[in-house]
Amino acid sequence: MTERTATLESTLSALAAAKKYSALREVLITMNPSDIAYVFDELGEKLLPLLFRLLPKELAAESFVEMDSDLQELLIRGFSDSELKAVVNEMYIDDAVDLVEEMPANVVKRILQQADPDTRKLINEILKYPEDSAGSIMTTEYVDLRPDMTIREAEDHIRRTGIDKETINTCYVTDRSKRLIGAISIRTIILSDPDAYVRDKMESNVISVTTTQDKEEVALMISKYNFDAMPVVDKENRLVGIVTFDDAFEVITEEATEDIEKMAGMTPSEKPYLKTEVYRLWLNRIPWLLLLMISATFTGLIITNYEHALAAQVALMSFVPMLMGTGGNSGSQSSVTAIRNLSLNEIQFSDLLRVVWKEVRVSLFCGVTLAIAGFCKIMLVDRLILQNYSVTVPVALVVSITLVVVVLVAKVIGCVLPMVAAKVGFDPAVMASPIITTALDALTLLIYFRIATLILRI
Amino acid sequence: MTERTATLESTLSALAAAKKYSALREVLITMNPSDIAYVFDELGEKLLPLLFRLLPKELAAESFVEMDSDLQELLIRGFSDSELKAVVNEMYIDDAVDLVEEMPANVVKRILQQADPDTRKLINEILKYPEDSAGSIMTTEYVDLRPDMTIREAEDHIRRTGIDKETINTCYVTDRSKRLIGAISIRTIILSDPDAYVRDKMESNVISVTTTQDKEEVALMISKYNFDAMPVVDKENRLVGIVTFDDAFEVITEEATEDIEKMAGMTPSEKPYLKTEVYRLWLNRIPWLLLLMISATFTGLIITNYEHALAAQVALMSFVPMLMGTGGNSGSQSSVTAIRNLSLNEIQFSDLLRVVWKEVRVSLFCGVTLAIAGFCKIMLVDRLILQNYSVTVPVALVVSITLVVVVLVAKVIGCVLPMVAAKVGFDPAVMASPIITTALDALTLLIYFRIATLILRI
Repeated sequence: MTERTATLESTLSALAAAKKYSALREVLITMNPSDIAYVFDELGEKLLPLLFRLLPKELAAESFVEMDSDLQELLIRGFSDSELKAVVNEMYIDDAVDLVEEMPANVVKRILQQADPDTRKLINEILKYPEDSAGSIMTTEYVDLRPDMTIREAEDHIRRTGIDKETINTCYVTDRSKRLIGAISIRTIILSDPDAYVRDKMESNVISVTTTQDKEEVALMISKYNFDAMPVVDKENRLVGIVTFDDAFEVITEEATEDIEKMAGMTPSEKPYLKTEVYRLWLNRIPWLLLLMISATFTGLIITNYEHALAAQVALMSFVPMLMGTGGNSGSQSSVTAIRNLSLNEIQFSDLLRVVWKEVRVSLFCGVTLAIAGFCKIMLVDRLILQNYSVTVPVALVVSITLVVVVLVAKVIGCVLPMVAAKVGFDPAVMASPIITTALDALTLLIYFRIATLILRI
Repeated sequence: MTERTATLESTLSALAAAKKYSALREVLITMNPSDIAYVFDELGEKLLPLLFRLLPKELAAESFVEMDSDLQELLIRGFSDSELKAVVNEMYIDDAVDLVEEMPANVVKRILQQADPDTRKLINEILKYPEDSAGSIMTTEYVDLRPDMTIREAEDHIRRTGIDKETINTCYVTDRSKRLIGAISIRTIILSDPDAYVRDKMESNVISVTTTQDKEEVALMISKYNFDAMPVVDKENRLVGIVTFDDAFEVITEEATEDIEKMAGMTPSEKPYLKTEVYRLWLNRIPWLLLLMISATFTGLIITNYEHALAAQVALMSFVPMLMGTGGNSGSQSSVTAIRNLSLNEIQFSDLLRVVWKEVRVSLFCGVTLAIAGFCKIMLVDRLILQNYSVTVPVALVVSITLVVVVLVAKVIGCVLPMVAAKVGFDPAVMASPIITTALDALTLLIYFRIATLILRI
C-alpha cells in the first residue's frame, strides 16, 4: 500500500515539475480515489489545486470525499462557485453531510448555496438527526421497488435509476405509503425468472434499524448479519435511507480506536494523530492525568498513616511498587476484557454473576501462582543473592498473602465496575479505567499494611 | 438485537415444549441465520439436534456457519454421514475451511470424507496457505469473465453460474492464462449497453493482493478502498480467489480486540470470553503478571538503595505512588496512541521524528500543568489541610520538578518503543506494554530520588 502510493507520488511530482499536464492526467485517471487523496495530501498544498483540476468531474468528486477535512477546506476556498457546485452535486448525500459537518460555518454557507435545491433539502434533513445516530450516517440514495413489479420491470427500473444510487446490490421493496415490506438482492433479481413478481422473490422478513438507533449498534448488526446495507426506517416503519457496509466499517474502526484511547485515559480525538495540534492532544490527555494525580492523595495519606510500621520494617516499603503494579495489571486485565466484550455485545449486565464467578476463579489461580513465585523470588533474590537481611520470612509471607488478596480484589472490581457503568448508562471505557486505577492503588496499600501489621505485630 | 432474539428464544422453546414441530419450522424459516445460531446456542444442547433438523437444507448450512465451534462439533458428532454431506457441500469454501481449522482431527476426517471430491481438493489447497494470510481467508467462488465477452454474454454467464458464487456484486475479468486483467461491478454490467464489450467497460487498473499478504493488511485495504471484495492473485498474477468484505469486517474487529488484550498484558484468546475455560484465561494472563512482578525487583532495589534518603525525609515516600502512577499513565497514553496508529497504518517508522517531536511538546505542556497543579495541591491539601508539616516547600518543589521530567521521559519512551518494535518486526502491542511499564516504574523512582538528593542535600 505505502509502496504503491510512494511510487505514484514520485511519478506525479516529477510530471508536475516537468509541466507534463496531459501525461499527469493520464496517470491520475488510472488511480483509485483513496490513493489520489493520499498522494495529494503527501504532495502538499502547492500542487493541490492544479492536480485536482486535472481530474475528470466524477473522479474529482470521489477523490475529494476521501481527503482529510483540512485538504477539503483548502480546495473549497480555492474553488470557483461552478467548481464547488460540480463537486458537491457529484457527491453522495451521506458524504455531502459529512463534509458540511466538518467545515467551518462560512464554508458550509457556500456549499449549501451551490448545492441543488433538493440536495440541500436532503442535507438539511439528515443534519437534523442526533449525532452518532443511524440517521446521521445514512444515505437516501437507494433503489426502492414495488411488490407488484415483475422482476423484468424491477430490472428496467434499476437501469433507469441505478446510476445515481450509492448501491444497487440490495434493493428495498416499499408499499404505497413508503413502508418497508421487503428486500431483494440484485443477485436474486438477476437469477430469477423475469416474469416472476418481486413480492414472491423478495425477503419479506427484513431486519431494519430506526433513524435514532446508535450508529455503533447499527455497524455491529451489519457485520453480524453480513449485510452490504442496512435499511433505516422512521417510527412508522417508512423507509428513509440506508447505511452501507463501508460506513459501518469506518464506525467499527473508529469505535475501537475510541475505546482504546478511553481505556488509556484519553479523550478520543477527531483528527488523525499526525494532524492533531499539540494543544488538542494536551487537552485530550491532561484531564485524566490531573484527575489521577489528585486522587493519588489517598495513597499518599495511607502511606503517611503507616509511617510507624514502615519505620519499624524498612523492607516493607521496597515491595510497594511491585504490589501496586501487580494490582493495577490484574485489574486492567479483567476490566479491559469486560469493556471490550460489552462494546461488542458479547456480554450484558445480566451476565454479571457468571463473569464475577469466572474472574474469582481465575484470580485465585493467578494469585496463588504469583504468591508462590513471589515468595521464592523474595527469599532467593532479595535475601540470598542481594543479601538484604531485613527481608525476613514473615515479610515474604506478608507480601505473598497480600498478592493473593490484591489480585482477587483487583480482578473482581475490574470486571464489575465497567458492567455497572454500562448498566447505569455511562460509557464503561471512560468511567471504569480511572476509577479502577485509583481505587486499586489505595486498596492495595490498605490491604498490604493491614496484613503487615497483623502478621508482623507492628 | 438482544430483545428480538430473546423473544424468538421464548417462542421457540415454548413451541418445542409443546412439540408443535410444523409451527416451529414456520417460525425458523422466517429467521436470519445469525439469529438462529444465537438462539440455538441459548436454548442449549438438548433441543439443538431436533431444531437443527427442522431447518431447510440451505438455511441449515447458513445457520451452521454462524455457530460457535463447540456447537458445530456437537452437531457434527450427532450427524449421520448424509446429513454431514448435505451441510458441508452447501457451505462456501472459506466457511468450510474455517470449520476444518477449528474441529478436532477425528471430526475433520469425517468432514473431508463427506465433502465432494472437488470441494475436498479446494479445502486442502486453501489449508496450505500460511495462517493469517489472504489465501487462508479467501473464497474461490467468484464470477470470472473474459474481456471479449459482450455485456449480454456476461449477464448470461452470471445467470448460469451465479447461483454458487459467494458474491456477484463484483465480477473479475481474466485472460486465457487466468491472469487478472480487470474488474467490473454488477452495477456497470446492468447499466451498460448489452452489445458493449466487457473489456471496454471493465476497470482495468485493478487493485489486488497476493495469497501470502497479511489478512489484517487486506482488511484495511478493503475498508480503505470501500471494496465489497478484494481479488487475491498468486505470484504470476493469476486470480485464485477473493476476500469478501464480511470476512474483512471480522478480521478488523478481531485484530482490534487482540490489540486491546495485548496492551492490557494478555495473550489474546480464541473463543468468546464466556466460553473460555478458567485455566485458559489463567494461561493467557499469568505470564505477563509474573514477568511484571519479577521485573519489579528493580524498583524494590532502588527504594532499598535510597532508604537513608527516605529515612531523612519521610514525606518523600508518600509521593512515590502518585509519581509512579502519573509516569505510567503518561507513558500508556503515548504508547497506546502509537500502537493503534501503527496497526491502522496511520504512522510508519519513517514518522518517528515527527511523532517524538509532537510528544515532546505535548509532554512539556502536560508536565508543567501537572507540576503547577501538584505544587498547589501539596501545599494546600497535604500541608495546610492535612497539617502534615514534614511536607515542606523544598519537598513540594522536588515532586513538581520530578513530574515534569517523568512525564517527558514517559511519553517519549511510550511512543518510541512501539515504533521500534514494529520496525524490527515485533508486535508493538506485545513488546511495548510490559517493557514500558517496568522501565517507567524504575526510571520514575531513579529520577525522583536523584532530584530529591540534589535539592534536599540528603
